[in-house]
Amino acid sequence: TLLWGIEKALTEQDLAGRHVLVTAGPTQEAMDPVRFLSNHSTGKMGYAIAARAAMRGADVTLVSGPTALDTPHGVTRVDIVSARDMYDAVTSRAPEQDFIIKAAAVGDYRPAQTADEKLKKGDGEMNIELTRNPDILAALGKDKKPGQLLCGFAMETQNLLDNAESKLRRKNCDMLVANSLRDKGAGFGTDTNVATLLFKDGHRETPPMMSKEALADLILDRLLAMSN
Amino acid sequence: TLLWGIEKALTEQDLAGRHVLVTAGPTQEAMDPVRFLSNHSTGKMGYAIAARAAMRGADVTLVSGPTALDTPHGVTRVDIVSARDMYDAVTSRAPEQDFIIKAAAVGDYRPAQTADEKLKKGDGEMNIELTRNPDILAALGKDKKPGQLLCGFAMETQNLLDNAESKLRRKNCDMLVANSLRDKGAGFGTDTNVATLLFKDGHRETPPMMSKEALADLILDRLLAMSN
Repeated sequence: TLLWGIEKALTEQDLAGRHVLVTAGPTQEAMDPVRFLSNHSTGKMGYAIAARAAMRGADVTLVSGPTALDTPHGVTRVDIVSARDMYDAVTSRAPEQDFIIKAAAVGDYRPAQTADEKLKKGDGEMNIELTRNPDILAALGKDKKPGQLLCGFAMETQNLLDNAESKLRRKNCDMLVANSLRDKGAGFGTDTNVATLLFKDGHRETPPMMSKEALADLILDRLLAMSN
Repeated sequence: TLLWGIEKALTEQDLAGRHVLVTAGPTQEAMDPVRFLSNHSTGKMGYAIAARAAMRGADVTLVSGPTALDTPHGVTRVDIVSARDMYDAVTSRAPEQDFIIKAAAVGDYRPAQTADEKLKKGDGEMNIELTRNPDILAALGKDKKPGQLLCGFAMETQNLLDNAESKLRRKNCDMLVANSLRDKGAGFGTDTNVATLLFKDGHRETPPMMSKEALADLILDRLLAMSN
């Protein structure tokens, strides 16, 4: 904490007074008290953004799914489990935010039924019906307040940039960070990332592979520039 | 490592020369490169057993699903992801083991198909067909070599002891540790456990709530007593 304070004192507080909400990690969608559907997000990218934003003086709220990571210094963390929890935690806090950065990998689907007791296994096959979770990014894009900036993330294994551009438009984002799971040094659990940044005005930026911390700073730089 | 060496030097090496295989953690069953089906096991119980067995002089192999835990000192760890990986890792190492302790929460089901590319979400519902994974405990019980002891685990939310007794018999276990998810101080992620031990000769033992480390020692004590 002392070292953090010293580093912060030496860091330009260019985000002072800004309210930043970051989401991170996976969600877990329960089938029963034991089993769930989830994804490989470790939360590293979102935690890096929250940490850097706090270091640069922002008032940071981190809404996090289950991860093994420590809460970054100076960040208010809100823990959630399911996509519906995430929806509530984010939409209720959205109105007061200047930047909303949705780095979490929110489950698109949940089991249509969640059993109260552990499901006993049978001998053969089993079917689970999945239903769509509410679309948090779309809800935020629809209710965006004047001056608020919304940054989404897209991770794909194919047709990345087309899908990302379409997502940016449909969800009314100001910026979108597109990651390919297929790029070396990108994706889940790595400490580096390879991303293309897409902007509302149509331009794109593909920085070289860099640490998630450096990419976090770049994302914050671009949002700050757009907000001024 | 120095402290561990000192503690080990002060610990009775009553498992010296024994080969112990422990399984721990959850498995992950892939739907596609991003999504998977898993469960809430953190691996703490199995890691505690592996750690205590190594401290008591055993030659310990820990076959572990994805966890956030450090490998205990003196333990050989083999990392796996899916139930089928676990099956291969355990059955191939089983013949040379004296005790096999199956603390992992192995997924009973996996998606019948695993997509090579991330599945694009549609607008409505989705169905996933699940298929049964191979039954590792049953395979071990069937191929048990003379003198080898097999310890299973059962976790249920209801009818715990009936289900546990049935599992002990069907799977040809020597001992079974039954946990209720409903007991305070038991279950996933806790540092304590509440368990009933069931034995092949029909007797049962319900120790008070204790740390997972103390329960690990008790499980090893009972196996050692049965083996002598």
